[in-house]
Amino acid sequence: MQVATVLYPDFTALDIIGPYDVLGRLPGAEVVFVAADPGLVRNDLRSLSVQPEATLDEVTSPDVVLIGGGPGYLGQLEGGRLHEWLRAVDRTSTWTTSVCTGAPILAAAGLLEGRRATTHWSALDDLTRFGATPTSERVVFDGHYVTGAGVSAGIDMALTLAGRMAGDETAEMVQLIIEYAPEPPYRSGSMEVASPAVIESARVALG
Amino acid sequence: MQVATVLYPDFTALDIIGPYDVLGRLPGAEVVFVAADPGLVRNDLRSLSVQPEATLDEVTSPDVVLIGGGPGYLGQLEGGRLHEWLRAVDRTSTWTTSVCTGAPILAAAGLLEGRRATTHWSALDDLTRFGATPTSERVVFDGHYVTGAGVSAGIDMALTLAGRMAGDETAEMVQLIIEYAPEPPYRSGSMEVASPAVIESARVALG
Repeated sequence: MQVATVLYPDFTALDIIGPYDVLGRLPGAEVVFVAADPGLVRNDLRSLSVQPEATLDEVTSPDVVLIGGGPGYLGQLEGGRLHEWLRAVDRTSTWTTSVCTGAPILAAAGLLEGRRATTHWSALDDLTRFGATPTSERVVFDGHYVTGAGVSAGIDMALTLAGRMAGDETAEMVQLIIEYAPEPPYRSGSMEVASPAVIESARVALG
Repeated sequence: MQVATVLYPDFTALDIIGPYDVLGRLPGAEVVFVAADPGLVRNDLRSLSVQPEATLDEVTSPDVVLIGGGPGYLGQLEGGRLHEWLRAVDRTSTWTTSVCTGAPILAAAGLLEGRRATTHWSALDDLTRFGATPTSERVVFDGHYVTGAGVSAGIDMALTLAGRMAGDETAEMVQLIIEYAPEPPYRSGSMEVASPAVIESARVALG
């Protein structure tokens, strides 16, 4: 079972590493990090460089496609090679998935037309713009599309998907291996619970 | 404010990427991934390669030291250059921190003698062996040492530390940016709540 995880410049690392350390632990799973070109890909914070293991052309029929978000998503909305690849692999994928602002990329590629989907709270309008129906749920299944909300939601998305793919007991095992019994120190992780001051400072920080 | 995050072979990616996407978003923070040698470092699942930005010798006085876990921790318990570096930077660090089985490495380097600390549930005995007092809490502060439990606990550890370093409102802002309002699909993320069958299969999977 091959999981193709897409890298592009200015990605947010946790978006893809959360699901990676879940799906990559399923029996028989092989994750491959793919990018348009060979060579290191640098993240949004500019201090992490990841080496893709394959170019898009080399991965033609993954079982699962996963694309994360990050400020670089704005550079991936205009068509081109990544969109062509996404449309091609989506024809045979069992699951096509996103975390955070990966969903607007799927939508811009034409894959979420009329579908319910989620994304980072700051980017819900992007889904509307490309014909999807945004929801602020944390994990959304619609057909063979699975979308997760912002950044850390990729862990919940991947564990939920793991249950569908490998059964509840295996997914529970992975949840125990990654010791996922979260104890967030604050109640500020969503628009519903964060204070107005925190929401404002987050909007400013996101630019 | 410099955060030095240690890479070594067979690390678990989420252990360090969770804290990275928290601490790296604090105002004025600069994270540097360091390794004993230049060149790509490969993780436990063997499909992710990260390029360190500096060698240990090049980073001499980080404000925060962070070491994660992964099966490769077993190769980092026997002294040598990493232990010497940890002892050296710990003399001037504001915070020396670990996630998962990074804690036994700190303990083996002699830094957690008589300290309360936590680690992955499968490795609590390693802390005893090296003179620390294990606890199964998710985040433990003792002096300027901060340890987090397994893998995903690094996010809770880093957000808690962010509050101490930058104040609650800034930490809450980061929690909102990474949309950390977890909804784990199962109640299986700790030894206290997982079923005996799930615990047994996790032990087998961990080898």
